[in-house]
Amino acid sequence: MKEFQLIEQIQRETSIASSSDSDQGVRLGIGDDAAVLELPAGQHLVAATDTLNVGIHFPIDTSPYDIAYKCLAVNLSDLAAMGATPRWALLSLSLPQVDSVWLKSFTAGFKILAQAHGVTLVGGDTTSGPLSVSLTAMGFVGPGKQLTRGGANPGDLLVVSGTIGGAARVLELLQKETSVPNRQLLDRPQPRVRLGQALVGYASACIDVSDGLLADLGHVLKASGCGARLEIEKLPQATVLEGLEDSQKWNYQLSGGDDYELLFTVPRHHKALIASWSQQLGVSLSIIGEIEKDEGARCLRANGTSYHAQYAGFEHFRQKA
Amino acid sequence: MKEFQLIEQIQRETSIASSSDSDQGVRLGIGDDAAVLELPAGQHLVAATDTLNVGIHFPIDTSPYDIAYKCLAVNLSDLAAMGATPRWALLSLSLPQVDSVWLKSFTAGFKILAQAHGVTLVGGDTTSGPLSVSLTAMGFVGPGKQLTRGGANPGDLLVVSGTIGGAARVLELLQKETSVPNRQLLDRPQPRVRLGQALVGYASACIDVSDGLLADLGHVLKASGCGARLEIEKLPQATVLEGLEDSQKWNYQLSGGDDYELLFTVPRHHKALIASWSQQLGVSLSIIGEIEKDEGARCLRANGTSYHAQYAGFEHFRQKA
Repeated sequence: MKEFQLIEQIQRETSIASSSDSDQGVRLGIGDDAAVLELPAGQHLVAATDTLNVGIHFPIDTSPYDIAYKCLAVNLSDLAAMGATPRWALLSLSLPQVDSVWLKSFTAGFKILAQAHGVTLVGGDTTSGPLSVSLTAMGFVGPGKQLTRGGANPGDLLVVSGTIGGAARVLELLQKETSVPNRQLLDRPQPRVRLGQALVGYASACIDVSDGLLADLGHVLKASGCGARLEIEKLPQATVLEGLEDSQKWNYQLSGGDDYELLFTVPRHHKALIASWSQQLGVSLSIIGEIEKDEGARCLRANGTSYHAQYAGFEHFRQKA
Repeated sequence: MKEFQLIEQIQRETSIASSSDSDQGVRLGIGDDAAVLELPAGQHLVAATDTLNVGIHFPIDTSPYDIAYKCLAVNLSDLAAMGATPRWALLSLSLPQVDSVWLKSFTAGFKILAQAHGVTLVGGDTTSGPLSVSLTAMGFVGPGKQLTRGGANPGDLLVVSGTIGGAARVLELLQKETSVPNRQLLDRPQPRVRLGQALVGYASACIDVSDGLLADLGHVLKASGCGARLEIEKLPQATVLEGLEDSQKWNYQLSGGDDYELLFTVPRHHKALIASWSQQLGVSLSIIGEIEKDEGARCLRANGTSYHAQYAGFEHFRQKA
């Protein structure tokens, strides 16, 4: 198996249909030194890159299907958080050895998600090395239309999609057990691409929840220069959190990462849209608080008392205390 | 050191000047979920990605400066081979641990080459893992103006820039000795960006020499549906090859990789341009053969006899014979 053939094989097996390349703006795809791509007229390019390493971003027993799925998902989630329309991907794959069964599964996982979002693989490289997947996702957004972290204003509603805390709970259970129910919460996050697109023109700020709710909310608040009130009993709860004590559950919800839901803020006069987006897109949306003037995030219980979270999200290279 | 801060630090220390971001089309750079970039009107996006792993693509004692330099160089070389103008880069960096001295050196190596080619770092991620650098380079080219591997025609002149075989020779010497003269041939390839741009509209095919001259020529011939006559005694020789026996020298030149020179074909009526490009850009250009109708590459000595090369280039995952 040669390097070029490997990427070509993945491309062939994941392509929607070669005839659709021209509609996708692929002027030159895999097989030359670089891809040549045409953006829709007047649109701006949106690009994000993320690497997943074995043992760091996914457990060593993760199936190749899920590794590919997750790597594409986390990158599409970044585009979703900008309100962008995904279109192309570049894939860099480091493998200890070539294994056609492994590769077939990897390709299938990539394909299912790429097709769901109209993403074409347009280039990349394969190399030997410890298992690592690096992906660049590219798409587009209208000039000035991107959602950012920096536009939240006091009074805006704070909203999160889906449920949170589930991926972190699954990851913790996997440390002790080999078979964990709802493992797809960790392995197959759903990038909220259509939701991100729907929010363009309405949401004042948006981010995806990758490091943990409080950590990612912190990014929005810092970029927006304001604070927030977070009503922790309104946090949407993954079923794997059922039966846990409140403090344990809240810890997963506030500090667990890897959920890849969208956390966004909406001016109060657009409140009615929240239910309509939810219905239209089939994704639950929960109002979990409000943006306030004073800096910092304040967690409140339903009875109005404060709740102090202990840990604020996962970061690589976190310095040991 | 936090993940976001790390990329921000690299960006800050490598940026040409923040005021130039708008000229560079950076509508939103590092610090949000994805970069938002504006291509010059009417241009097509050109994108390439390449990963360098420790012990595979660079010796373990390679300085961080050179690791960064080479990773950017090999990606810019891919854009050069398309005749594209580089503009932006995304960087994914896996590190066993954070080391500010290491990072300072890495950043300096990135900066020197990025500035030379007007490249702005617009995003990326850092993560823990075995040392690995994955880079996506993006630039642009006029619609239909890209150089490809597929346009060579019988009668076209075959030209290569710089010298070849040097990087492979240095790599081999490094297996036996710790200090090797001209190590920069391996560590700091010079992406021929300006040459690639000059070739647009004139060269009929182009590729960069990364896998080895014969292997890369093979890609051009296959894509173009023709063959070539290669006059091996006209191959430009790196000084580190001096004193070697002919067959050993030719082996490095024909099969050694990692030179990142441009190999291109030019219709004979443009022959006079070759000397003028060379003079204008300060890069040596050697006519090393001619495209022919019959498929395959034929290596000829100056006396007209055939020379049979033994090994045709480096590929990851090469199946053991």
